[in-house]
Amino acid sequence: MTCGDLRPTHVGKKVVLSGWVHRSRNLGAMVFVDLRDRYGITQIIFDPNISPEAVYEASKELKHEYVIRIEGEIVMRKSPNHKIPTGLIEVQAHDLSVLSEANVPPFAIADDTIDVHEDLRLRYRYLDMRRGEILPNLVMRHKAMQVVRHALTEDGFIEVSTPVLSKSTPEGSRDYLVPSRVHPEKFYALPQSPQMFKQILMVGGLDKYFQIAACCRDEDLRADRQPEHHQIDMEMSFATQEELFPIIENLVGRVFHECKGVELAPPFRRMTHREAMERYGTDKPDLRFEMEIVDATDLAEKTSSALFTESISSGGVVRGLNLKGGARLSRKEIESYQQLVSQFGFKGIAWIKSQEDGLQGAIAKFIEEEERQKWIDRFEMEIGDCLMIIAGEKKRLLQALDQLRRRLGKDFDLIDSSRYEPLWVVDFPLFMWNEEEDRMESETHPFTSPHPDDLELLEKDPLAVRSMGYDLVVNGYEIGSGSQRIHDREVQKRVFSVLGLEDEEVRDRFGFFVEALGFGTPPHLGIGLGLDRLIMILIGSENIKDVIAFPKNHWAQDLMTGAPSEVYEEQLQELAIKIEQSVVGQN
Amino acid sequence: MTCGDLRPTHVGKKVVLSGWVHRSRNLGAMVFVDLRDRYGITQIIFDPNISPEAVYEASKELKHEYVIRIEGEIVMRKSPNHKIPTGLIEVQAHDLSVLSEANVPPFAIADDTIDVHEDLRLRYRYLDMRRGEILPNLVMRHKAMQVVRHALTEDGFIEVSTPVLSKSTPEGSRDYLVPSRVHPEKFYALPQSPQMFKQILMVGGLDKYFQIAACCRDEDLRADRQPEHHQIDMEMSFATQEELFPIIENLVGRVFHECKGVELAPPFRRMTHREAMERYGTDKPDLRFEMEIVDATDLAEKTSSALFTESISSGGVVRGLNLKGGARLSRKEIESYQQLVSQFGFKGIAWIKSQEDGLQGAIAKFIEEEERQKWIDRFEMEIGDCLMIIAGEKKRLLQALDQLRRRLGKDFDLIDSSRYEPLWVVDFPLFMWNEEEDRMESETHPFTSPHPDDLELLEKDPLAVRSMGYDLVVNGYEIGSGSQRIHDREVQKRVFSVLGLEDEEVRDRFGFFVEALGFGTPPHLGIGLGLDRLIMILIGSENIKDVIAFPKNHWAQDLMTGAPSEVYEEQLQELAIKIEQSVVGQN
Repeated sequence: MTCGDLRPTHVGKKVVLSGWVHRSRNLGAMVFVDLRDRYGITQIIFDPNISPEAVYEASKELKHEYVIRIEGEIVMRKSPNHKIPTGLIEVQAHDLSVLSEANVPPFAIADDTIDVHEDLRLRYRYLDMRRGEILPNLVMRHKAMQVVRHALTEDGFIEVSTPVLSKSTPEGSRDYLVPSRVHPEKFYALPQSPQMFKQILMVGGLDKYFQIAACCRDEDLRADRQPEHHQIDMEMSFATQEELFPIIENLVGRVFHECKGVELAPPFRRMTHREAMERYGTDKPDLRFEMEIVDATDLAEKTSSALFTESISSGGVVRGLNLKGGARLSRKEIESYQQLVSQFGFKGIAWIKSQEDGLQGAIAKFIEEEERQKWIDRFEMEIGDCLMIIAGEKKRLLQALDQLRRRLGKDFDLIDSSRYEPLWVVDFPLFMWNEEEDRMESETHPFTSPHPDDLELLEKDPLAVRSMGYDLVVNGYEIGSGSQRIHDREVQKRVFSVLGLEDEEVRDRFGFFVEALGFGTPPHLGIGLGLDRLIMILIGSENIKDVIAFPKNHWAQDLMTGAPSEVYEEQLQELAIKIEQSVVGQN
Repeated sequence: MTCGDLRPTHVGKKVVLSGWVHRSRNLGAMVFVDLRDRYGITQIIFDPNISPEAVYEASKELKHEYVIRIEGEIVMRKSPNHKIPTGLIEVQAHDLSVLSEANVPPFAIADDTIDVHEDLRLRYRYLDMRRGEILPNLVMRHKAMQVVRHALTEDGFIEVSTPVLSKSTPEGSRDYLVPSRVHPEKFYALPQSPQMFKQILMVGGLDKYFQIAACCRDEDLRADRQPEHHQIDMEMSFATQEELFPIIENLVGRVFHECKGVELAPPFRRMTHREAMERYGTDKPDLRFEMEIVDATDLAEKTSSALFTESISSGGVVRGLNLKGGARLSRKEIESYQQLVSQFGFKGIAWIKSQEDGLQGAIAKFIEEEERQKWIDRFEMEIGDCLMIIAGEKKRLLQALDQLRRRLGKDFDLIDSSRYEPLWVVDFPLFMWNEEEDRMESETHPFTSPHPDDLELLEKDPLAVRSMGYDLVVNGYEIGSGSQRIHDREVQKRVFSVLGLEDEEVRDRFGFFVEALGFGTPPHLGIGLGLDRLIMILIGSENIKDVIAFPKNHWAQDLMTGAPSEVYEEQLQELAIKIEQSVVGQN
C-alpha cells in the first residue's frame, strides 16, 4: 500500500504506510502528519485517545522529511481535502517507527511554489526530486524508452551495446579522452555517437540495429546541451528512406500516443531543405503556426528606399513577415524587436502597417502609389496587419527572420501548445563551406550518400549537391538526424577527394572503418533521435535538466557529486600523465 | 523476403533477394551462388537458357562476399539440401545487381570449421560476425535485455540513466579517469557501477529503480573480464530481502524461459555463506553435482601420518572429496591433479581407494584397522571410490578443494550441462581483513547493512559480523551481488569507525553521499546482475567475448578500431595534460 492508494472504500481496514513527513501540525490535542511517498500524500492522525501514549508522544517529535512507518486504521476524514485523491480519508495511527531522521533541508520540500535557485536544486538533487517535478519526468522518460524498444523490437531490430571506451569518430565535436594505463601515451575516446559501430554492424550482416546510447561531446555548453545525452540510435541495411520513415513515424507516434495521448497521423509531412530555408529561414521550422517568410526583393527594388536598393545592389535580398493584427503595435513595441535582428548584424526592421487609410510606416512613403497593391497582395495583407521587413545578405537574413518569427509566434500567442507538428526535412546539402578554415566540409559526416541525381555535380559544383540526409523536426526542434550512407567505394573516394582528404589522412582518421567498408557493404541507412529532446517536447520544457536524473550544470559540473574533481597523484602516475602547469592562466 | 524464408510453397513466385555471396560455383554450363543474409542461405542459379546473357556473364564474375541483389523465380531444387531450411528450393535469377564488391577476406567466411586466431577475429570483427557464431549471441542478448526490462517494468520499476561522466565510487577497483577541459586539473571518473546514484535515487523518493548500465573498471584483465561490462542494476526502498528475492527469481526465471526454454522453479535454494564455504569451499558452488567437501580432521588426528598430524598440530585441517568410481584411476592419473592443488601451496593429494580387498593408497597404511570403517562411513565410500584429501591451512585448503571439485566434475562428466542450479548465498561476512595493508575492509562496500542480530558484535568481533549481503549464483558462477543498505546514521558511523575511517576521510571519499543519507533515507536494498555473465551461461560459453559485439582483447585493446590510440598534441594541450616520459621503461 502506498500513500496514494487509500480511498473511502478502504475505511475500517488496517494499513501499514511508509514515507516522508511532508508536513506535521501539532494542534495541541492531536498531531496531524501528511505522509508522502512517490505515489501521493495521506493524512495520518495521532490522537491521544486512540494512539498509545508512546506513539502519540513520539509523533510530536516528528520533523520534516523524517522517514517513518505507521500502522493504523483508515477512517473517513472530518474535513475532506478535495484537492488530492486520498483527501477523503485519513489514517488513525496505532504504531509509529522512525526509520530515519533528517537534517533540516536547505529548501522547503512541501512548498513547491518557492522558487529555488537551480544551483541549489542541482546540489541537492535528491531533495529536488522529492519536490515532485523531476520524478514524473523520469517516469515519462522510462515509459518512452520502453515504448521505443518495444516498437523497434516488434519491427525486428536488435539492440546492441557498443563500447563506451572507443576511438574518436569523425563527428566533428571535441572528444572526451580516457588515458590508458596499460598503454601509456594512448587514449580511448568516449563515443560522440555509435555511428561507425552501427555501420560496421551492417557490414557484419546485422540488418537491423538499435540502441539507446549515451553520447558524450566536450562542447561548450548551451542552455539545451549537456556533456552527455542519450540518442535513440538505429540503422538498417538493404532498405531505403521509404522503408525507414514509416518505422520512425510508428515509433515516434507510439511514444506520443502512449506517453501523452496525442495522435501523430502518419505519414509525416516532408519538405526539402531548400523549401524549409526559403519559407521559414531554418531547417527546423515550427509548423504550428503560419507566418511564412515572403520575398519582396523585386518589389523593394522599385522603391526609392536607399535601405532596400543599396542592399539589393550589393547582392542582398529583401524579405519579411506579415504579423496578422500587428498594426496595433506602437512604434516602440515594434522597435523592441530591433534588438533581436541586430544580433545578426541588421540595423533595423522596416515596418509597414496596413490601416483603414492605407499603408503606414516610415518605409511606406518610399513605395509608389501604384506599387502599394502589389505589396498588399504579395504579403496577403489585411487591414490591421503589420509587415516586418529586413534587407541584406540572404543567409543571415533568413537566420534573423527565423528568430523573429519564433519570437513573434510566442509573443502573439500564435502557437497552439497542444499541437504537435512533425516534419521530415529532406535533401540536405552534402557539403558546406567552412569560411574560417577556407575548406569544404561535410554537412554531417563524410559517409553520407550524395543524392543519386546529383552525382555528376560532385566535382563540378559540390555545394549544389544534395545529400540523402534527412532530419525529423517537431514543433521547431530537430529531434533526429540521419542519412542513407555511401556503400559504393568509388563514390566514397570521390567524396573524400572533394573534401580534400588525402589517402593517408583518410587512413589516419578512419582507416579501420574504410577498410571495413571494402569487404562487401550492403546499402544501409539510419537515424539518431535525441531522447532528451523528445522528452522535453513531451513534457513541454525548454530545460534539458528537467529530463535528466543527474544533470551537469552550465560548466559541465555535477554540483551534487562535485565531479569533475581532483584525483590522487598516484592515479595520475599510474596513467603516466601529468597536469600541465596552466599556460592559459589561473582564474 | 530474406535468404531464410523460401520454401516449396513459394514455388512459381517471383522474388527479390539481397545478400552476400557465400559460395559461388561456375559449373561451366551454369553458375550456382549461395546467397547469405542473417536469416539463412538460398541457392541462386544463373542458367544461360533462362537468365539474360548479361546477367549470366555478370554472375561468372561474382566473388566471395560481394553484396548482390537478384530477382528471379522460385523453383524446386533438383538435388535438395536437407541440411538447411531453404534446401528444397532455389531461385532462377533473371536479374542481378552488384551492390558492393569485396576484397578477399583474411579468413574464410563460408567454412566455419577453420579455427581462426582470436586476434584476427577481433581485428575483423565484422567478418567474424558473418561467420554465424556471434550474431545469434547478440540476438539472445537483445532478447534477454527486453525480457529484463519488461519484467521489471511490470513490477513497477523505473529505468533511470545515471551519468557516464561521474565521480569515483568506493567500489574498490581502479577508476578510468576523464580529464576535464573546462576545469583543468580536475577529472571525471567513469562509473564502476551506479551504486551511489541508485542509492541517492532512493533518498530522492524513487522507490523502484533499474537500469542496464555500462560499468567500467580499469583492472588487469582475466579471461572472463572486460574493461567494460553491463550490469542489470536495481534498487528498491521500503522493502526487504523477502520482497526482492521473488522479483529477481521471476526476472531470471523469465530470461531462462524466454531465451532458453528452461524453467527455473522459484523459490531458489538458499545457503548461508558459511555453509557454502564449508560444503563446497566457495561462495559460488556449482550445485549441478554432489561431491561435497568432507571434514576428516578428527579422524586424521588419530592416524600415524605425519602429513596429517603435523598439519593439524600447526592449526590446519584435513578435508577431502570422495570421487565416486575413482578407484579405477592410476596413480599417475591421480597425481595429475597434484599440480592443481600445488598452486595453492599444497605438496600433494593424499588418496585412498576403496577396493574389494579394503582401503588402498600410501596414506591407508597409517590408518588403524579399527578406524577404517569410520573413514568409509564419513565419506560414504563404496567399493570403487577414491578419496582425495588435503591437509593444511583452512582457507587455502577450501580454495584448492573448490578448484579440485570443479575440475573433477568436468573430467568425470559429473555435470549435466542441461541443468541450471540457481542459488542464493546469504549472510556474507560484513568485513574482511586485508592482510597486505593490515586493515579492516568491507566485503563489498561500507554501505552494506550489518545483520541486525550481529549489531552488538560490530566493535567486539567485527570479522564475525554477518552482513545483509547476498549473491545469486548459477552453476558455480556468481551472476549477481547485492545487499540491504544502511539507512541508520548511527549504524553507518559505527561501520566507518570499524573501518578506521576518520570523519575527514569519509567526507573526502564520499562526503556528498553521506550528506545525502542525512536528509531522510528510507530502508533500501538492491542488486546488480552481470548481464554478460548471464548471457554466457545461456549460450554455454566461457569466453565473455562471445557475448559482446565489440570486445576488447586481453590487453584492453579494441583490435578493430585500434583503441586506445595516440591523440593529437592539441587535444592534450586543451586538456592541460602532458604525457609523462615513461619511468617504468618502454618495452
